[in-house]
Amino acid sequence: MPMKKFINAPANLVQELLEGFVLANQGKVALAGSNLVVRTHPKPKNKVALVTLGGSGHEPALSGFVGEGMLDISVPGEIFAAPGPPRVIEALRAANRDAGVLFVVLNHAGDVMSANIVMDMAKKEGLNVKQILTHEDVSGGPRDNPEDRRGLVGALLVIKVAGAAAEQGKPLDECLVIAERMERNMATVAVAVSGATHPSTGAVIAEIPDDVMIVGMGQHGEAGGGTQKLKTADETADIMLPVLLEDLKIQPGEEVLVMLNGVGSTTQMELCLVLRRVKQILEQRKVTLARCLVGEFLTVQEMGGFQMCVARLDAELKALWDAPCNSPALVVK
Amino acid sequence: MPMKKFINAPANLVQELLEGFVLANQGKVALAGSNLVVRTHPKPKNKVALVTLGGSGHEPALSGFVGEGMLDISVPGEIFAAPGPPRVIEALRAANRDAGVLFVVLNHAGDVMSANIVMDMAKKEGLNVKQILTHEDVSGGPRDNPEDRRGLVGALLVIKVAGAAAEQGKPLDECLVIAERMERNMATVAVAVSGATHPSTGAVIAEIPDDVMIVGMGQHGEAGGGTQKLKTADETADIMLPVLLEDLKIQPGEEVLVMLNGVGSTTQMELCLVLRRVKQILEQRKVTLARCLVGEFLTVQEMGGFQMCVARLDAELKALWDAPCNSPALVVK
Repeated sequence: MPMKKFINAPANLVQELLEGFVLANQGKVALAGSNLVVRTHPKPKNKVALVTLGGSGHEPALSGFVGEGMLDISVPGEIFAAPGPPRVIEALRAANRDAGVLFVVLNHAGDVMSANIVMDMAKKEGLNVKQILTHEDVSGGPRDNPEDRRGLVGALLVIKVAGAAAEQGKPLDECLVIAERMERNMATVAVAVSGATHPSTGAVIAEIPDDVMIVGMGQHGEAGGGTQKLKTADETADIMLPVLLEDLKIQPGEEVLVMLNGVGSTTQMELCLVLRRVKQILEQRKVTLARCLVGEFLTVQEMGGFQMCVARLDAELKALWDAPCNSPALVVK
Repeated sequence: MPMKKFINAPANLVQELLEGFVLANQGKVALAGSNLVVRTHPKPKNKVALVTLGGSGHEPALSGFVGEGMLDISVPGEIFAAPGPPRVIEALRAANRDAGVLFVVLNHAGDVMSANIVMDMAKKEGLNVKQILTHEDVSGGPRDNPEDRRGLVGALLVIKVAGAAAEQGKPLDECLVIAERMERNMATVAVAVSGATHPSTGAVIAEIPDDVMIVGMGQHGEAGGGTQKLKTADETADIMLPVLLEDLKIQPGEEVLVMLNGVGSTTQMELCLVLRRVKQILEQRKVTLARCLVGEFLTVQEMGGFQMCVARLDAELKALWDAPCNSPALVVK
């Protein structure tokens, strides 16, 4: 049976979602122009702006990351679909300033296609925009084929540290260097145990047999992972974490951030159990769990499963991670 | 098919959950004594302390509400079960101080039984404790039979405003008056569309037929509601909100807070749609939606559905709601 959802007419879904979303986060975000999600209190024009784009249906991502110390503008698309170039260039024009704009794009075909067109337009218009592409999903293939790696929840880390750098007044080149260093030093793998329902079409996305889990499944249940018998929390962490540590070549003595992102119906309880085991494995390897974040940040409707993201931290990235922010999905005092 | 969960041995579930939970929220909460969840940075002893108790399996509630401007100690029980008196009296002793302790109890049979025994013990020991019982579930019966009304997510409002008052240094009697005023002026109703799985026994809780929703279902799927055909987001808001406004006798010109609490697999998208309709209904009735909060605060594993809580605000309650707090589940800057 497909999930039972509280929606209205599918044709109005994203419009209604956005109206409700800014209402739920009054004082933090608002709608401007062609349904761009912007800050209620804009950043001064002498600081770098951050803009992103991406399909809806992954709430709170990506518009939930708009706010002080994070994004300036998010361009939400239709359900699971990239917004087209007209609205994205509108966002870049609105954000454009002498200090420049950092444009954060997650590596998914539609997003990249829209972003590439818009970057060409921006260049012709003389907008001061630099792009950072996130592609940290290890299940896409080896690290030297980055174009095969999808952008998953790690985008939140890039937005957090680059957003903090921008808020502190760092110039565009430095914000880009920070974003790139964060991106290069993070890796994500996903596990799925149950599919989801497309909220506007009602279609079931990715049916997963009873007693099966799939490691390395993409954000919408794209193929690409290892199908295996459902494991315990500890066993699942034992499978997922080493893949990420190897991908990043994390050495004893290093410090890492671990983010566990529930994709829908998987509970905070389960994520806490997995985190507990992550800490044990890291201790065995003499790696320090310097920071962690557990919650639902980039969801896929009611899908069951989670994304595990590991990032190597240095002193600067750690300080930027700890810097204050105030967005719908993440508040740091 | 029951939900597939990432857990380990059921017997260790709550212990592992708590270890992971405090790890996920390092710098905010820690474990002390017999698995009491306490603040990492305790409140000065000259301010009133807030203590609560409740079963696990509802994460982030209730331990997620421990932190600056919120609770001082939470006593988590086993899954869906109240903690026994020995650990609760341990918490009250640990919190005891000249300024006094406010003891927040949600109206569920096991919690109340444990709390009553502990209040007797506290009195004999000369501890300075006052109790506030939350029972705002309108589906339990009319307002003049409060003992039949269960305590649902509204407890978060009571904890927030009383916690802010305590943090500001208000005396115990005043904190209690504030908590009671908040409690008296709030009402909650729940809707359920799909059941959940008990995480340690694997038992399915409350099977709900396809295409059916149940309004007024309790927190664990207890009976007590109206079974009806699944409705749209707007229609569901049209059914639920008037029940709450009538219960509270909200008049045109008044200000309300609306909280929508997803109980598990219901998405933020759906809650945003419902909130949008809530705002329209309130506008028709000339009631101001002064504040709102949308998220997952008191969950029931992967159950589908949500709780709608409405509260009448006055100037003082509104200011206390807006006061800063820093807990795992709610941060206000």
